Amino acid sequence: MKKFEEKTVDTEIIFEGKVIRLQVEDVELPDGKRGKREIIKHPGAVAVLALTNEGKIVLVEQYRKALERSIVEIPAGKLEKGEGPEVTARRELEEETGYVCQSMKLLQSFYTSPGFADEIVYLYLAEGLTQKEERLQPDEDEFVELMEVTLEEAEKLMEEQRIWDAKTAYAIQYLQLQKALTE
Amino acid sequence: MKKFEEKTVDTEIIFEGKVIRLQVEDVELPDGKRGKREIIKHPGAVAVLALTNEGKIVLVEQYRKALERSIVEIPAGKLEKGEGPEVTARRELEEETGYVCQSMKLLQSFYTSPGFADEIVYLYLAEGLTQKEERLQPDEDEFVELMEVTLEEAEKLMEEQRIWDAKTAYAIQYLQLQKALTE
Repeated sequence: MKKFEEKTVDTEIIFEGKVIRLQVEDVELPDGKRGKREIIKHPGAVAVLALTNEGKIVLVEQYRKALERSIVEIPAGKLEKGEGPEVTARRELEEETGYVCQSMKLLQSFYTSPGFADEIVYLYLAEGLTQKEERLQPDEDEFVELMEVTLEEAEKLMEEQRIWDAKTAYAIQYLQLQKALTE
Repeated sequence: MKKFEEKTVDTEIIFEGKVIRLQVEDVELPDGKRGKREIIKHPGAVAVLALTNEGKIVLVEQYRKALERSIVEIPAGKLEKGEGPEVTARRELEEETGYVCQSMKLLQSFYTSPGFADEIVYLYLAEGLTQKEERLQPDEDEFVELMEVTLEEAEKLMEEQRIWDAKTAYAIQYLQLQKALTE
């Protein structure tokens, strides 16, 4: 899939952070002209749609500095180097919610912002949940509050824009679709 | 929604580009400790799920330098300063596809990468399409190829990972849900 390929002429690394790298690339466009692309490199992430044995959705509320507010999301976290996404999904679920699961199934993967970032999210469905007595510690700079809601309550959180991110919106629509298909 | 608020102690602007700004913020965490947040500021974007009068989905294939490949997406574009999202949606639809529409309805908005970016996408449903004879010019560094596909063909493009981004995945699942609800 190289249609309209933009060949890199030069790459300037502007910033190498703990989470993201910013680079500006000089590219040759398909018509031979030159252009510049501002690119964020990201390690990728997992997100977990976890359903309790009562069919409730496990959500976490956390402050998102980029948005200057807290939002309610499905549990998620960045891929660690050399760690397969399912391992990350199980670890993040346990760290953020205390749940371990019997079944962890990949539902979908998607690039979140292909216009400027290579972040990919692997979205998993976790079922057969058991709450561990001793919880793993979340990252030391991570503060999250656990919620368990019905689909109807999640739809209300979306209307109120307390749920407001792409992966959680996709996951809730996935449940709406499954419900519509089985009714 | 300020739960677990992280107060800004200092902001360092690292890069101010044509599309994005990168800043690193020193924050005070809820437990009083300090942390750093790498934040991308983005103007926001629109995306348009446009349905032809035959019920086909209008898609564009374009090269995404961040991914180093081309992918197939619903038409989309960045918000211009002072421009309301519906105006942007109509302009981007016309620039990228040549279509004008009678009805443009906001389906959903979502933050794409709340962990590091404030990019929001306003997703519209466009119906009542008419192809203009004289097309607006896309941005001069933008090369796109138009496709019109059925829902089944779009599902196949997702399986093949030619469609692979969050907004388009959400839009296709939206159509799957509408179909399931009316069958």
